Amino acid sequence: MASFLLLNGPNLNLLGTRQPEIYGATTLADIEADARAHAGARNVDIVALQSNHEGALVDALHAARGVHAGVILNAGAYTHTSVALRDAISSVELPCVEVHLSNIHAREEFRHHSYIAPVCIGQIAGFGATGYILAIDALIAHLDMV
Amino acid sequence: MASFLLLNGPNLNLLGTRQPEIYGATTLADIEADARAHAGARNVDIVALQSNHEGALVDALHAARGVHAGVILNAGAYTHTSVALRDAISSVELPCVEVHLSNIHAREEFRHHSYIAPVCIGQIAGFGATGYILAIDALIAHLDMV
Amino acid sequence: MASFLLLNGPNLNLLGTRQPEIYGATTLADIEADARAHAGARNVDIVALQSNHEGALVDALHAARGVHAGVILNAGAYTHTSVALRDAISSVELPCVEVHLSNIHAREEFRHHSYIAPVCIGQIAGFGATGYILAIDALIAHLDMV
Amino acid sequence: MASFLLLNGPNLNLLGTRQPEIYGATTLADIEADARAHAGARNVDIVALQSNHEGALVDALHAARGVHAGVILNAGAYTHTSVALRDAISSVELPCVEVHLSNIHAREEFRHHSYIAPVCIGQIAGFGATGYILAIDALIAHLDMV
Amino acid sequence: MASFLLLNGPNLNLLGTRQPEIYGATTLADIEADARAHAGARNVDIVALQSNHEGALVDALHAARGVHAGVILNAGAYTHTSVALRDAISSVELPCVEVHLSNIHAREEFRHHSYIAPVCIGQIAGFGATGYILAIDALIAHLDMV
Amino acid sequence: MASFLLLNGPNLNLLGTRQPEIYGATTLADIEADARAHAGARNVDIVALQSNHEGALVDALHAARGVHAGVILNAGAYTHTSVALRDAISSVELPCVEVHLSNIHAREEFRHHSYIAPVCIGQIAGFGATGYILAIDALIAHLDMV
Amino acid sequence: MASFLLLNGPNLNLLGTRQPEIYGATTLADIEADARAHAGARNVDIVALQSNHEGALVDALHAARGVHAGVILNAGAYTHTSVALRDAISSVELPCVEVHLSNIHAREEFRHHSYIAPVCIGQIAGFGATGYILAIDALIAHLDMV
Amino acid sequence: MASFLLLNGPNLNLLGTRQPEIYGATTLADIEADARAHAGARNVDIVALQSNHEGALVDALHAARGVHAGVILNAGAYTHTSVALRDAISSVELPCVEVHLSNIHAREEFRHHSYIAPVCIGQIAGFGATGYILAIDALIAHLDMV
Amino acid sequence: MASFLLLNGPNLNLLGTRQPEIYGATTLADIEADARAHAGARNVDIVALQSNHEGALVDALHAARGVHAGVILNAGAYTHTSVALRDAISSVELPCVEVHLSNIHAREEFRHHSYIAPVCIGQIAGFGATGYILAIDALIAHLDMV
Amino acid sequence: MASFLLLNGPNLNLLGTRQPEIYGATTLADIEADARAHAGARNVDIVALQSNHEGALVDALHAARGVHAGVILNAGAYTHTSVALRDAISSVELPCVEVHLSNIHAREEFRHHSYIAPVCIGQIAGFGATGYILAIDALIAHLDMV
Amino acid sequence: MASFLLLNGPNLNLLGTRQPEIYGATTLADIEADARAHAGARNVDIVALQSNHEGALVDALHAARGVHAGVILNAGAYTHTSVALRDAISSVELPCVEVHLSNIHAREEFRHHSYIAPVCIGQIAGFGATGYILAIDALIAHLDMV
Amino acid sequence: MASFLLLNGPNLNLLGTRQPEIYGATTLADIEADARAHAGARNVDIVALQSNHEGALVDALHAARGVHAGVILNAGAYTHTSVALRDAISSVELPCVEVHLSNIHAREEFRHHSYIAPVCIGQIAGFGATGYILAIDALIAHLDMV
Repeated sequence: MASFLLLNGPNLNLLGTRQPEIYGATTLADIEADARAHAGARNVDIVALQSNHEGALVDALHAARGVHAGVILNAGAYTHTSVALRDAISSVELPCVEVHLSNIHAREEFRHHSYIAPVCIGQIAGFGATGYILAIDALIAHLDMV
Repeated sequence: MASFLLLNGPNLNLLGTRQPEIYGATTLADIEADARAHAGARNVDIVALQSNHEGALVDALHAARGVHAGVILNAGAYTHTSVALRDAISSVELPCVEVHLSNIHAREEFRHHSYIAPVCIGQIAGFGATGYILAIDALIAHLDMV
Repeated sequence: MASFLLLNGPNLNLLGTRQPEIYGATTLADIEADARAHAGARNVDIVALQSNHEGALVDALHAARGVHAGVILNAGAYTHTSVALRDAISSVELPCVEVHLSNIHAREEFRHHSYIAPVCIGQIAGFGATGYILAIDALIAHLDMV
Repeated sequence: MASFLLLNGPNLNLLGTRQPEIYGATTLADIEADARAHAGARNVDIVALQSNHEGALVDALHAARGVHAGVILNAGAYTHTSVALRDAISSVELPCVEVHLSNIHAREEFRHHSYIAPVCIGQIAGFGATGYILAIDALIAHLDMV
Repeated sequence: MASFLLLNGPNLNLLGTRQPEIYGATTLADIEADARAHAGARNVDIVALQSNHEGALVDALHAARGVHAGVILNAGAYTHTSVALRDAISSVELPCVEVHLSNIHAREEFRHHSYIAPVCIGQIAGFGATGYILAIDALIAHLDMV
Repeated sequence: MASFLLLNGPNLNLLGTRQPEIYGATTLADIEADARAHAGARNVDIVALQSNHEGALVDALHAARGVHAGVILNAGAYTHTSVALRDAISSVELPCVEVHLSNIHAREEFRHHSYIAPVCIGQIAGFGATGYILAIDALIAHLDMV
Repeated sequence: MASFLLLNGPNLNLLGTRQPEIYGATTLADIEADARAHAGARNVDIVALQSNHEGALVDALHAARGVHAGVILNAGAYTHTSVALRDAISSVELPCVEVHLSNIHAREEFRHHSYIAPVCIGQIAGFGATGYILAIDALIAHLDMV
Repeated sequence: MASFLLLNGPNLNLLGTRQPEIYGATTLADIEADARAHAGARNVDIVALQSNHEGALVDALHAARGVHAGVILNAGAYTHTSVALRDAISSVELPCVEVHLSNIHAREEFRHHSYIAPVCIGQIAGFGATGYILAIDALIAHLDMV
Repeated sequence: MASFLLLNGPNLNLLGTRQPEIYGATTLADIEADARAHAGARNVDIVALQSNHEGALVDALHAARGVHAGVILNAGAYTHTSVALRDAISSVELPCVEVHLSNIHAREEFRHHSYIAPVCIGQIAGFGATGYILAIDALIAHLDMV
Repeated sequence: MASFLLLNGPNLNLLGTRQPEIYGATTLADIEADARAHAGARNVDIVALQSNHEGALVDALHAARGVHAGVILNAGAYTHTSVALRDAISSVELPCVEVHLSNIHAREEFRHHSYIAPVCIGQIAGFGATGYILAIDALIAHLDMV
Repeated sequence: MASFLLLNGPNLNLLGTRQPEIYGATTLADIEADARAHAGARNVDIVALQSNHEGALVDALHAARGVHAGVILNAGAYTHTSVALRDAISSVELPCVEVHLSNIHAREEFRHHSYIAPVCIGQIAGFGATGYILAIDALIAHLDMV
Repeated sequence: MASFLLLNGPNLNLLGTRQPEIYGATTLADIEADARAHAGARNVDIVALQSNHEGALVDALHAARGVHAGVILNAGAYTHTSVALRDAISSVELPCVEVHLSNIHAREEFRHHSYIAPVCIGQIAGFGATGYILAIDALIAHLDMV
């Protein structure tokens, strides 16, 4: 059974408690459980990991090579500042879907630019927790698993 | 039965024939049929329209008020140049999902900016024809139709 | 009896229904009627036209040559994106007054720039429907009709 | 009887003598007299003041609180450089109409930006001395005095 | 007998009447007739079309596929603002020569940039009506028709 | 007994009445009294001066040489526009502490830049009237008066 | 007894040894001891933490929720590059005072911008170790503890 | 006997005491005396005036019309920020020579731009007090007084 | 018999050997011979010169005054960096046609700007060696030699 | 025997497996072994360390003080984003040579800027694994060890 | 007897014939003769040289070391593009006065920046041929020769 | 026996005499001799050439084709301004190593950009005369001569 790495970046551990008017009340555990259920029904396993450390996210991507079929990545704030994550995605050569809970293109100017977008398959932004479910479907479709 | 307006902008009528290495071989008719099938299975009707005319797209958005429950919009090249479309979306106050076949954030610099993003719920880019299916699911979830 | 072309651009047909906190509750028909009354009392006829199509606005300006004594133009969103309208105004060599319902200089950065301003006599912005009345007075004064 | 402060900034005391090809031959005294006549016919008094000193204009705005019903301000060159005037307008919380004799949007790039525009009701530019008359009408309409 | 599409954009219908100091006194009909004569003498037919509508120009390019051997395009003001035209040219995969009557590189800054240049074979600017004749020769040479 | 010049710039005379949601309800007289009390308890005299005139602030700085041990300066709007104040501070070679009532780094972009910062010891911003008290302590510490 | 988190970022562990001409000779231990003494005399406890790891600083801010009454943060170099820290401060919704030993506005251009400033109460920069003492006073005043 | 207005702006009253390593030890009185002597020997009178107030400098320029044959202006810091001075120079239509003691092009970036340069005959910068003598000669030559 | 100066700049001596995928296999000698033949048939002589030295190109332009009827100039890399060539063209007041083998507007950003364009009649770019033939025709037409 | 710290940043642990067309097939272990051999032959020891964590790299630099004679640093992606590393290098006051496997000046724009360059002795970029050998020689020469 | 090198750059050999409305009718020979006379009367010899070649100007500056007491340089167009000339001036460590016939600050934007200004004593611009005479006086004063 | 062209640009002939605090006291002759010795010991001949003329450097690169195995180029100031040199390097298709004596990335902003970097193998900057020795080793390694 194939698996996807579900990787969440800084501050996403606070989900459900942090600025709910922007991010909603669902916790990260809820999101991971929903993702696991949705993917499981499609014969895909989800391995979930969250870290506030840029280096830990890079390490996790490295470790995904040869283990997972693809990556669903919400890099949070590192989306806008991390060339290291971009290079890690390029290096491991796994299909990666970029997810954002909020519509980053409707927020502060500095959130409009994503360092990782050019090395991902595509971007899903603005649909809250639903975005992860869409990302799973997008990755399955991309890998022609359907 | 609720309906969504599926609105496609300039050059998308050429889908399946134009630069297939970027946009794939699926035609617009295929996309509209797949959207109709996917939405129909979820009790939503799809009304599809394509135009190369900015003004015609504005007119179509205006006409959607009070008729459709939401809009799925691939504004094509007008994404990057049309303030008129942005204002039309604001005016009609319908939930709108922005779709792009290619990952616009991985292409020329001028395609990274979207005038319509700040007035849409969210953006789905880079997943080819699958993007429209994801957009239907996103809109249904947004409207709590599930 | 001299006449002015009263030309309104994209989304202005929705006036009175669209974002009333910015644009007020007056409809475009109200505005045109008020303009006609105000100008009529000063022996000037008003011919009114609205379109969401950039090309249609250009066509209308071309058709105004030799027919109208001047133009009152609210180009709406095309103010910020249309070089074609600018060239049309230059071409027809009629005095043109630029009108905006809202104070565009107090809104998003991209609304601060007007492509048409340098080829108009002047700009009136921020006074809602009153702006059109002021524009009529300005044009009459400019043409020394008083 | 309500009154408006008619405030003119640097170099406007030279009106009628300075670059008449841009600003016309009317003197500031003419403008103030015309404004007084036009406003008087509408039951509004005009108190006029001109200064070349940024600080004096700030002082005048402060003194207008509780005295005048609104302000008509041609800040001249300070339009483009004075944050102090902007803050003064915000502070006194009187409706303010921004007037410019020339069409500032058709002149040098640095004249396109107005620090005071975002704190004024609206802007009237390019109509020469007529602009002050239009501003009086705009302010009366804004205050629902008609 | 091969044919070229001679496509002219906004305001070019006014040629011969509009700002003759920049564009000369030749009308568009003169230009089309001269082009037809010059091309005819080289066994190439000219089909001419002018529109002020961006969408109509896109439509015309689409319709040219499989019909014409190449395109001579003076996109006028849309040169500087239309990504839709750029994408249309890419889509139809016909050799396209960009023509401008005036030397756009010697005019306002915003006219120096052409969205369509990167998808055209080359650019001819500044030679007035002669530019179209040169473009025909360039296209014939490019297609090795000589 | 040493003394500090407490210099306040444009619009700060309105404190307590102007935009209290940003600046609080304390008046400038309150601030000066509190500063005098706080400094007095530390054997430092406070001489306070406020002006809306850039030139008057420059004059006051010049007059401070050889008279005061240091300067506490809230230059208000001139912070962002006055090279003259910057040069005055450099010229008089007195230690100067820059104070702002609001957190200028959290407001409009143009308020993020301070012309005077590079010639001051340091900056205290965002703490309302408390900022002046902190500035007195900072200046005393800087001068090793404790 | 209330407590403040005193959080220091990268390279601040070297204080007293690193570039003393800019940062002074006081060590971080000295600063923490002085802060503890100053706050203690005002019935506030100080919990001090320093890390060179961006993620560790984010973790520390998360852990401060419900534990400390406020945060004094010298984010060092991360001030200028970390959106993650900014989001962490927003998330934990604790009042945060930004401190810098040197006057960052008088140094290299890239040090003039602070990602965290807009989510802090205020900024104190340029007063060396004294800045922490001022920050404690500012935080106490902000929390109305006096 | 013709006369020149020798106008000095902010902080130049401190000459001889302010940053002598940049500006030299000569006082403004010395400069004015030397200018008077040098001009006198060439049958030109010098009327000297210095002010730290932008408005006062504008007033002085206005008063120079019909009185002086030309102006020698060291606008100091206002060189870089004052559009009002620029407009005053344009208005009075007297030949004006711009003088700077230091080489402004070799100092901070913001001192490289002069708002007044485009309305002056020419600029002399970097030669200390000698610059005024050169300016007198330049003005005499410009006026063909030799 | 009139003559044109055919002036080629840096690296164009390598034509036919350098990056043939961009510039084609024709040598500069071929181009000059073809130009001579084409012009000769129209009673115009061609004097050809190539240099890698900016100064030599300037010298050649100077020497063309009173000798040639016009100039065909491919300034190569100096197009983008040489103000000296621009000034030389202005100085000699000969009609000059700018030629580029490749479509400079489709290459690196820094090749989009031409210092010489504003002082030339027009620009022909992207048609390889054919460009010189078109330039001869353009110059003949411009000089009304036909 | 003197020693150098050989410090490698994010993703460099993947060397030999990651994008070999850019970085070559040599592994990091190979590089470290070669460096050790080359330096050993010159009586210099190499201590090698790699981390994907910015904070860990800062820690390692701190630990190098008083231990190593110099540093060879390939900061990878952190080169372009880390002010913390720059400050760490300044702080430890050890000679540091910046190495990059690829020619960063020939890649994406954002890789052209190095935050650490201004605090290093020099930069070696584009020579693959050979760059480390050159860096050892450069550091030995700099320290006059030869 | 001391001597100055009078160095003129590209196109200045055409003086008196080139765009006289900007540069006047005086020839370079006239200027050199006048400079020689003016300097001779002050016991300074003038050695004059003009070249259109950047390299030749660099060579001339090198040759001036140990030969001349100072340099008067009108670098013409190379002012705005030549870092090589800037470095040459730095290298030879001779006092250099920058002269421009026209007021470069009142012309095209790209002429406002001078690469050589930061390494010259000062700049004289806008006074036509008189500028050279002023430069001689400035250099003599700078060298305390008077 | 293979040979390398050692090409030095403007002002490098002054080495050893020019700003020794930046460039050291070694002369260009010393550098060339050291390079010859170092390369000779590795069976490579060095042909050295220096010029202050951009065109001469282009000529030298052209002449190197088919003669030398590679180029070591210190383009000096032309690094930052010469597109002609960049094109010459591309044209001759010889491996080229870019050398700079000083660390250009630690100097003025305009020295951070190199036009030639993208067409060279790599860059070595900041190691003084040692840089040439490193460049020889880099070129030998690149050509697999070891």
